[in-house]
Amino acid sequence: MPSAIPNPFVTRLSPPPIPSVFAWARDYAGAHGPLIDLSQAVPGYPAHPEMLRLLGEAAASQAMTGYGPIEGETVLREAYARHVSDIYGASIQAANIHITSGCNQAFMCAAIALAGAGDAIALTNPFYFNHETTLSMLGIERVLVECDAVGGFLPDVVSAERALAAGARALAVVTPNNPTGAVYPPSLLHDLFALCRKHGAWLVLDETYRDFLPGDYGPPHALLSEPGWEDTLVLLYSFSKSFCIPGHRLGAVTAGPKLLGEIAKIMDNMQICAPRSAQVAVAAALPVLADWRAGNRLEIARRAGALKAVVSDLPGWDIAAIGAYFAFVRHPFADQSSAEVAERLAKRVGIVSIPGSYFGVGQERYLRLAFANADVASIGLLGSRLPLG
Amino acid sequence: MPSAIPNPFVTRLSPPPIPSVFAWARDYAGAHGPLIDLSQAVPGYPAHPEMLRLLGEAAASQAMTGYGPIEGETVLREAYARHVSDIYGASIQAANIHITSGCNQAFMCAAIALAGAGDAIALTNPFYFNHETTLSMLGIERVLVECDAVGGFLPDVVSAERALAAGARALAVVTPNNPTGAVYPPSLLHDLFALCRKHGAWLVLDETYRDFLPGDYGPPHALLSEPGWEDTLVLLYSFSKSFCIPGHRLGAVTAGPKLLGEIAKIMDNMQICAPRSAQVAVAAALPVLADWRAGNRLEIARRAGALKAVVSDLPGWDIAAIGAYFAFVRHPFADQSSAEVAERLAKRVGIVSIPGSYFGVGQERYLRLAFANADVASIGLLGSRLPLG
Ligand SMILES: Cc1ncc(COP(=O)(O)O)c(C=O)c1O
Ligand SMILES: Cc1ncc(COP(=O)(O)O)c(C=O)c1O
Repeated sequence: MPSAIPNPFVTRLSPPPIPSVFAWARDYAGAHGPLIDLSQAVPGYPAHPEMLRLLGEAAASQAMTGYGPIEGETVLREAYARHVSDIYGASIQAANIHITSGCNQAFMCAAIALAGAGDAIALTNPFYFNHETTLSMLGIERVLVECDAVGGFLPDVVSAERALAAGARALAVVTPNNPTGAVYPPSLLHDLFALCRKHGAWLVLDETYRDFLPGDYGPPHALLSEPGWEDTLVLLYSFSKSFCIPGHRLGAVTAGPKLLGEIAKIMDNMQICAPRSAQVAVAAALPVLADWRAGNRLEIARRAGALKAVVSDLPGWDIAAIGAYFAFVRHPFADQSSAEVAERLAKRVGIVSIPGSYFGVGQERYLRLAFANADVASIGLLGSRLPLG
Repeated sequence: MPSAIPNPFVTRLSPPPIPSVFAWARDYAGAHGPLIDLSQAVPGYPAHPEMLRLLGEAAASQAMTGYGPIEGETVLREAYARHVSDIYGASIQAANIHITSGCNQAFMCAAIALAGAGDAIALTNPFYFNHETTLSMLGIERVLVECDAVGGFLPDVVSAERALAAGARALAVVTPNNPTGAVYPPSLLHDLFALCRKHGAWLVLDETYRDFLPGDYGPPHALLSEPGWEDTLVLLYSFSKSFCIPGHRLGAVTAGPKLLGEIAKIMDNMQICAPRSAQVAVAAALPVLADWRAGNRLEIARRAGALKAVVSDLPGWDIAAIGAYFAFVRHPFADQSSAEVAERLAKRVGIVSIPGSYFGVGQERYLRLAFANADVASIGLLGSRLPLG
């Protein structure tokens, strides 16, 4: 008898959404000029040549061929601990760092450590879709914390408290946010932290886009200076975006040693250790490419400015939230689903975005524009193209 | 209130076992000559220089920096599909291949696809410990299928049928086996396949050590020529051992497109895609290093021969099973646990092995010796050292 695929938590997941968006883009015949891809959460500029040199050098080394430490290469854990300490003005050690194969994996590790099947974790609505599908495939229930569309899509503290009071084991938020771009202010993050602590739950902060905050923003929050933060807080990070190396798959968890001990057990099963040579390369690049990253941050801020300017001139279009990397844009087609609008824009005028509905419940009026992916000139073209879509 | 780490499926796992074995080894003062490490499942020879060159070249390339296809790089999927087709005399396509970050990850993907929390998967006893801990942390129950210690640790078909009749969703076996080294004959694998099919369950074959079968062994099994194999069979493979590159983390799943579709959803959450540059390097190395791999296979067969010779001369010691990479050796200390014996051998005479008890229930009389990790001369030294332990 042919065997069914038995796990309904997996079979009921919809396939990864990004490929379907690419398929729309492939149908664009080019009538209005080159495709403008605002779908992918990757910077539209290449990795630094020195990064490539370091990657090549490490990968060619016999020393990198063996199994590495589960927690990650010591050089990278130390370098990243210093980096985190600098950003937050806190005292973070290598013992607080676990290196993963990217931030999706970091989230999955945290989710498994913090909840079993049947437990609940709270996510914002809208959410980063891989957070939602990760919980779903593990049989972890998601509770949604509403964001306030009027106030720039910040999570509603009352809604968060409701989720925690109902027993959610953790609250996972993304700041700067994917999909909305919203940057959660330090005071809000402090409130969410306090709420989690009050309810004996964990606060998981996905800070994948942290390096794209405006240069004068200051520390994203002061939570690493809270006494006992290790018993409530988990920070997740990705080297993919800042170093333009998603293909090398590197991320990091910052947490207390107790939680990291559990995460090491999980990682040993999930992949033993993250790929080694890229870790050594990034450890060397972290201080060396600081200026380059600062330049990219400025460039992305310019792109945000260009998007704001172009959308403000478009009747019916409105920027509901914008920040470091993404904008969540309200489209003018009240009677159409976000997928219909995104599909039409891709196929007809070659503007590729992601429908709001992919990120949560009741997001039909929105499209996510990953403006970091396009240069200022391309963003300028939206002014003439969007009205034709 | 400090938050507890809420998932008991994780907290109750013991920490990864290998580091504790290393700690014993560090206590060896060198009295009997250099340490002989028979603990690690890695070949005791370096990666080929051409492999390193290819790895360095690919890692330095801008083309490898972006996100790659979830299923893996097409060049590697095609090259590996040809390789599998050759080995088994079957017709396997790239569409049958999903590249993972190593074979542990391949197993975890398969486990999630095939069972949710509360379902059961059957493992042999003894088992590869990461299979057991992976199920455990996911809340998947394990059912044990006994192996026959007298007949060289082959799984008992009656015990397997009992597990499947009781509802196990899948039977996962490792051949050549870790920890015992046992090579499961094609007829036995066919029987297990037929049993799984009869019960609507899946047969998961972890073939991490496939390339170390004796050169004249012939195809490991004929299951890929069974009509409808795609509805029952999943093959897992690791590039770690054959290419001496575990630090680059590459493995593969061979399965039907339906199951691979589910695995793609899981992998998207777990890490989006496997690291890319090593995939491109291995695709090029796969045909080029065929002779080198054949030479290694001969060398490992020589090591097996050396171990057999040395143990046969040791009173009270007995090789219960041996094959491609590992031997499961019966020690003479009937009143001591396998951990006591392994600890003493490591600390006192510098022979590092893994206790049988780490691999299952009732394995106290056995030690796993990863003889592939030591050259023939070092293995010869066991003759004088083991009796002192
Ligand atoms: C919020 C967020 N978290 C995690 C990730 C995954 O990053 P990585 O490439 O490190 O897995 C992304 C990528 O888009 C993201 O937007
Ligand atoms: C049976 C078995 N499966 C899987 C693995 C993991 O291999 P990888 O390095 O590809 O994750 C090992 C490694 O020791 C193994 O022995």
